[in-house]
Amino acid sequence: MSARTSRGRRPGAPDTRAEVLTAARDSFAEKGFRGTTIRAVAASAGVDPALVHHYFGTKRDLFVAALELPVDPRDVLAPVVARGPADAGEGLVRAMLGVWDDPERRLPLVALARHLLDPEGARVFQDGLLSVVIGPVLADLGVDDVERRLPFVASQIVGLIVLRYLIEVQPLASLPAEEVVAMVGPTIQRYLTGPLPA
Amino acid sequence: MSARTSRGRRPGAPDTRAEVLTAARDSFAEKGFRGTTIRAVAASAGVDPALVHHYFGTKRDLFVAALELPVDPRDVLAPVVARGPADAGEGLVRAMLGVWDDPERRLPLVALARHLLDPEGARVFQDGLLSVVIGPVLADLGVDDVERRLPFVASQIVGLIVLRYLIEVQPLASLPAEEVVAMVGPTIQRYLTGPLPA
Repeated sequence: MSARTSRGRRPGAPDTRAEVLTAARDSFAEKGFRGTTIRAVAASAGVDPALVHHYFGTKRDLFVAALELPVDPRDVLAPVVARGPADAGEGLVRAMLGVWDDPERRLPLVALARHLLDPEGARVFQDGLLSVVIGPVLADLGVDDVERRLPFVASQIVGLIVLRYLIEVQPLASLPAEEVVAMVGPTIQRYLTGPLPA
Repeated sequence: MSARTSRGRRPGAPDTRAEVLTAARDSFAEKGFRGTTIRAVAASAGVDPALVHHYFGTKRDLFVAALELPVDPRDVLAPVVARGPADAGEGLVRAMLGVWDDPERRLPLVALARHLLDPEGARVFQDGLLSVVIGPVLADLGVDDVERRLPFVASQIVGLIVLRYLIEVQPLASLPAEEVVAMVGPTIQRYLTGPLPA
């Protein structure tokens, strides 16, 4: 994307917002979360950085907006975080299934998941979604050693998403959510609060 | 693939073997494991069904050969099966990591995994690899309710493969195998022998 001047453009017009998101997506994909600045995204979209902050908030908020998630994982997980880590395993799985089992949200989530599992999307997944969105949720939950625990939590959640929603392996794809919660909740709980190898 | 006659072709010549494998791969992808017959694969490759049996053995063996796995999962898991289900969780994870951590085998496995997670490969994954190769291993191990347990085992193993090998999420991608075994082994054990929801 080449930088453009904002001359003649109304700040905040609908296409401006879309252009900021496009510039943000390009930058997160190419430079990762840490390598992206609000200033550079604004320049690339031809708007003032203050406008980006005004519309999207922090860089983390801009990242979540750029992913076009049908929901913000931080909002979905807030009630789980509020109850603390002792029985968060089932809560996390239940919250995740609540979003993915909703037919209206399923399709965009499946498309996003396929993208994030591609080699080109891996950076956005690792440096962005995991480190910037999910990691802080686990930290807020009061989990220790988040960096070591997070990939194990993510491995089970990603595998569940792949089998239940992406390739729809039976009988898992049609099990009632609570059966999945009963099976997978204790796994997540152990990854969150169980012993770590010495 | 159109059927061809075998006139003028030496049975068992190197290209015949390759043509049988190509015909088998096409059929497994298009018709699934159950919909594929040795007879139809032989016809498509222009050879006698007896030759296919001679070269590849059973339909299940032909399926494993068609996947071009660098190892047969049934061989890798045989020692785990021999020890029985009581501590199979760690054994399964250790055996899986032993294959995937080998740099020579990694690349073809990553390519195969990416294919099996694509929409076009999903049928081969579900009807073939899971039902025909891995399911019988769990049954031989003496696990009850294999059909219900298998997708949970697979969800954790697939998620681990995706994060450690496909997108290489750190620190998981560079952890010593035994740390991964210590974390993930108990998960697999619970899926194999733990209580199932009523």
